[in-house]
Amino acid sequence: MRLSRYFLPVLKENPSEAQIVSHRFMLRAGMIKQQAAGIYSWLPLGFKALKRVEQIVHEEQIRAGHIPLLMPTLQPADLWRESGRYDDYGEEMLRITDRHKRDMLYGPTNEEMITDIFRSHVNSYKDLPLTLYHVQWKFRDEIRPRFGVMRGREFLMKDGYNFDLDFDSAIHAYNRHMVSYLRTYERMGLQAIPMRAASGPIGGDNTHEFLVLASTGESEVFYDAAITDLKFGDRVVDYDSREECEAIVKEWTTPYARTDETHDEAIFNAIPEERRRTSRGIEVGQIFYFGTKYSEPMGATVVTADGARVPVHMGSHGIGVSRLLGAIIEASHDDKGIIWPEGVTPFHVGIVNLKQGDSSTDLACEALYRDLSAKGLEPLYDDRDERAGAKFATMDLIGLPWRITVGPRGIAAGKVELTNRRTGESEEMSSGAAVDRLAQIYAGI
Amino acid sequence: MRLSRYFLPVLKENPSEAQIVSHRFMLRAGMIKQQAAGIYSWLPLGFKALKRVEQIVHEEQIRAGHIPLLMPTLQPADLWRESGRYDDYGEEMLRITDRHKRDMLYGPTNEEMITDIFRSHVNSYKDLPLTLYHVQWKFRDEIRPRFGVMRGREFLMKDGYNFDLDFDSAIHAYNRHMVSYLRTYERMGLQAIPMRAASGPIGGDNTHEFLVLASTGESEVFYDAAITDLKFGDRVVDYDSREECEAIVKEWTTPYARTDETHDEAIFNAIPEERRRTSRGIEVGQIFYFGTKYSEPMGATVVTADGARVPVHMGSHGIGVSRLLGAIIEASHDDKGIIWPEGVTPFHVGIVNLKQGDSSTDLACEALYRDLSAKGLEPLYDDRDERAGAKFATMDLIGLPWRITVGPRGIAAGKVELTNRRTGESEEMSSGAAVDRLAQIYAGI
Repeated sequence: MRLSRYFLPVLKENPSEAQIVSHRFMLRAGMIKQQAAGIYSWLPLGFKALKRVEQIVHEEQIRAGHIPLLMPTLQPADLWRESGRYDDYGEEMLRITDRHKRDMLYGPTNEEMITDIFRSHVNSYKDLPLTLYHVQWKFRDEIRPRFGVMRGREFLMKDGYNFDLDFDSAIHAYNRHMVSYLRTYERMGLQAIPMRAASGPIGGDNTHEFLVLASTGESEVFYDAAITDLKFGDRVVDYDSREECEAIVKEWTTPYARTDETHDEAIFNAIPEERRRTSRGIEVGQIFYFGTKYSEPMGATVVTADGARVPVHMGSHGIGVSRLLGAIIEASHDDKGIIWPEGVTPFHVGIVNLKQGDSSTDLACEALYRDLSAKGLEPLYDDRDERAGAKFATMDLIGLPWRITVGPRGIAAGKVELTNRRTGESEEMSSGAAVDRLAQIYAGI
Repeated sequence: MRLSRYFLPVLKENPSEAQIVSHRFMLRAGMIKQQAAGIYSWLPLGFKALKRVEQIVHEEQIRAGHIPLLMPTLQPADLWRESGRYDDYGEEMLRITDRHKRDMLYGPTNEEMITDIFRSHVNSYKDLPLTLYHVQWKFRDEIRPRFGVMRGREFLMKDGYNFDLDFDSAIHAYNRHMVSYLRTYERMGLQAIPMRAASGPIGGDNTHEFLVLASTGESEVFYDAAITDLKFGDRVVDYDSREECEAIVKEWTTPYARTDETHDEAIFNAIPEERRRTSRGIEVGQIFYFGTKYSEPMGATVVTADGARVPVHMGSHGIGVSRLLGAIIEASHDDKGIIWPEGVTPFHVGIVNLKQGDSSTDLACEALYRDLSAKGLEPLYDDRDERAGAKFATMDLIGLPWRITVGPRGIAAGKVELTNRRTGESEEMSSGAAVDRLAQIYAGI
């Protein structure tokens, strides 16, 4: 993309309404625009980053054998009356009446609807196990929306639901989700730690939240430093193997890691002091086994091999897709702006032309643009007639992980400069070498 | 995808509520499930087809130089009060009140919001021309939703908006959209004819609807048969060239083609009789130049080179993405089911194993599955323990354009059967030849 033809409305000033760094940088980098309290437009740069995050979520869910579909944003109230949640949900549920005076709502989550889909179409144990998921906009009418997309009202969430014949199979689905989530977050450049969550009114302790460590997080967290040494890396996982998934879950749930809701001071104090950590965390996902809570009242049953009819065991598993953009920036930025991890960067590399209008520099930039594109990379080329300082400031603010600087002096010497956004380190090399280097870096992502 | 692990709830019976063929087949093929009047879940097969259509829309918009973003589904009523449409829109607008008693609405379209984004960030003629678009769920509270996704209430639409300095530039944007739409529909295997549309209360005749010929269409259409001979093909278009775009628009708008709303009997009768056609059509898109209708009341202005401040010229351009699924099926089916055009098929090819459990047949199917996947194709492998007849019926119903049939006798002779869904023609060949043939077919899509 050429910046002269793009729509990247960066702001020079810090917007007064933004209290946290991710909100500030998302506004300043022209990623989002607030349209109403807690409701945002995703401007082109923000939309691109959001799509990268969503794409990783899809890829990892599909890798785990989960099946995508799409439920609508609006739901009939009657479904929620069946589960008993219509009255319980309170004011965060956006209730709507249509022209025929039917009660509707903007879905804050989809347990009822997916259970309805299941019961309409599945009747036999032979069709289990089954995990369906979607990535769809949700609405929760937060009383005080704040922190930009971190606590918005209209937000994009991945929510998946497993249907299993029995507890053991459902726990495998739970474990499979944990494994897929670990891999998902790591691909986004995040370390999200699974922490035992409060079980809520349902009971049982099969629920974990995933928290990204960040000083602006909403939860206080307590953990054993051993957990931050764990890496998912490029392990090949057989998601059908209960043993493999269970072993990975065990690896990540053995070191102590809890939020203030589940924190146990006695257990924590038993950790060697040098490994005890307290911090704050941003919740970016949660997995939850809830058994027959919905299948029983809503009649989602299957016939077993013995001919008995039993309610299915279910769980729900969420990733806060739009919120992740905020979390990634909270975890990865400096004073000058965002620092995108390679896995989610909206453009792979920025090209800064130091002397727009100088024919050899322009030609070199165009050639670079073409060569990068030919390698499947998406460059953002700052081809505006602007001072170098302004171009650098924009690139630093929007945070592409790599920048290639092209100037007349370098071109005369056959060199461009490749700069790493995170370290600030620059290296001179030929255009061809820079293209090859970047292709190599992104091939591993 | 292996069918034994997929969620494809096909129906044997014709659903009584479906009056038109696309609705019937979408329900029977397990593509959609109604959740409330005019509100559908897109089950896995439907979701996949929807994504293919959406992807083509994105690719062609980006090719034309238009920039994607994403506006939210909910909008504040105040924006619509500025344009004067809040009171005018009538009962099709779903009006919502949030917990703080603020008036909101579920966006039926986005002229107001995109104008708000523009005026907040653009100030100079130097930032023009600019075309922004999104693909987002909309809601229109139709009094009698019907025909499945063809006339739903919650529907997916691509809507794009151009901002230009003057009339000529805005007309180029209009032409550019027409060209990109012609290409978009053709890639989906559709012939969508641009027809002069009624201008509505705004005046001016710069609006065209795109109609797919189908007996179940909602509009009566009149056209010169010459227009159905036109093919976009693989022309390379320079979307920046006013001349090139104008020439293509001229090519498609010269032959007579109008709906009953704009039909002129006298002009029609001047067409040689053997070329006069009347039919019915499904509207799948519309382009519209409306000048300063929104920019003026909402203050979307730019400073010109002369220092004057002028309202920008705008247009809006829509494609009914979810509706297209219905239109494609209306235009492409037979008694047995859907016939997907290659460009939008949810899976590229079906594999039918005639004798599940026979080890050589199973092995051959697995090898085929692997080889097709390695070529970047997505097969749907019917690996269920079912009669051949049931497998064929399912494949015919869901309408993948190609099927490979694998049986023990063929395998013994080193052959599989490749069948074209549209023609029903089959050809015996080696597995390798079938894979190569399909790779070649889809390489051209």
